[in-house]
Amino acid sequence: MNSPFYSEWRHVFKLDPDRPIDDDRLAAVCSSGTDAILVGGSSGLTFDNTVDLLSRVRRFETPCALELSDPECGVPGFDGYFIPMMLNTDRGEWIARRQAEALRDYGRLLPWEHVAGEAYLVLNPDSTAAKVTGAKADLSAAEIAAYAQVADRLWRAPVVYLEYSGTFGDMATVRSVRGQLTQARLFYGGGIRSAEQARQAALSAHTVVVGNVVYEDLEAALSTVDAVINSAKEQDHVF
Amino acid sequence: MNSPFYSEWRHVFKLDPDRPIDDDRLAAVCSSGTDAILVGGSSGLTFDNTVDLLSRVRRFETPCALELSDPECGVPGFDGYFIPMMLNTDRGEWIARRQAEALRDYGRLLPWEHVAGEAYLVLNPDSTAAKVTGAKADLSAAEIAAYAQVADRLWRAPVVYLEYSGTFGDMATVRSVRGQLTQARLFYGGGIRSAEQARQAALSAHTVVVGNVVYEDLEAALSTVDAVINSAKEQDHVF
Repeated sequence: MNSPFYSEWRHVFKLDPDRPIDDDRLAAVCSSGTDAILVGGSSGLTFDNTVDLLSRVRRFETPCALELSDPECGVPGFDGYFIPMMLNTDRGEWIARRQAEALRDYGRLLPWEHVAGEAYLVLNPDSTAAKVTGAKADLSAAEIAAYAQVADRLWRAPVVYLEYSGTFGDMATVRSVRGQLTQARLFYGGGIRSAEQARQAALSAHTVVVGNVVYEDLEAALSTVDAVINSAKEQDHVF
Repeated sequence: MNSPFYSEWRHVFKLDPDRPIDDDRLAAVCSSGTDAILVGGSSGLTFDNTVDLLSRVRRFETPCALELSDPECGVPGFDGYFIPMMLNTDRGEWIARRQAEALRDYGRLLPWEHVAGEAYLVLNPDSTAAKVTGAKADLSAAEIAAYAQVADRLWRAPVVYLEYSGTFGDMATVRSVRGQLTQARLFYGGGIRSAEQARQAALSAHTVVVGNVVYEDLEAALSTVDAVINSAKEQDHVF
């Protein structure tokens, strides 16, 4: 089996098709040395704004993947597609039913060798994602670890995504989850606004996702790239 | 990686700890040539009746696995453990939360190399399992196939279990699901009361589970073993 498209990603910028970004800023982000651009968002995504963002990112060589939470936004031509499945909600429609409905209607169109299920834990109760999906986001470290085990060992999902959206998570919890995974890759996202936070996240997860700060403080956003890459090298050296 | 404990199972007898079975009948079932005994049920399971059934099955050489739907019944000493996760329900607690709670409390006790997640589709709306879990069991063939894809391709679950409990399913649907799986093993259970039905199920799924008829018509139950094994040989010959 070939390595999956995301297997070497350490740093990722996440761009939201519903948020405007000018050409200069987009060029800086795409040329930053990041491993990939991840396109996704919790609201306001359409086919049109997704295809528009893809075509603009395509001017650069950086790989670009789509988080496909709504089949209406299933734009062809991305290098990879993640299909998010919420873990920590009692609304089963967000874990399996909506995904099944999407596959029933559009599954034959998917380039399956570039598709990966993404097991999500939404950990900020105030986030849009938590509200939309009814996630129980105020979990203990032990509960987070247990959900991650469900995804890693029972589902065997390829990616577990700890999403603190907007808040910086507890790195000891993130590290502990990574230590318990048997095969999944751990994505961390949320609240990274500095090189130091990026470095800490890189020491705790496999892949660090940097989002909002791109829109708010470009210099700080760009500084996270080297912080993550160097931190990854540091770990390679230590272990 | 070693082959999982269930990888060669073609025929399985499912025994319910909450239903009495005398020694002669149990001996006939365990000595029938079946590939394994699967212990499980939808209600009335306790630690005591589970350990009692295991100790009685252990007098025979047949492998014995437990479907672990309630952590209180986590009896040690089985050859394997399946952890069921419902697919077709909007009550997320049955897909991931209860499993996470069980892993939080008991995960450290599990012999992980003998544990497999089991992605369940409950397809008889009148069954206890459907009522308990709030399953939407009256699915179209396309919906069943789509849920199976969620489990096989997005989760990457090792086992997909089509459970028609008490009714005999539509074999064309079962075959179609098997044809679309990329890595999961397909278990079929429900309504098998004759060698002919067992043969059809064996031509449609990887593993055939025979349950209720054990308690109602022992001769018919025993006749399903050869029907399944011979049918499996037939397929090996054809394909």
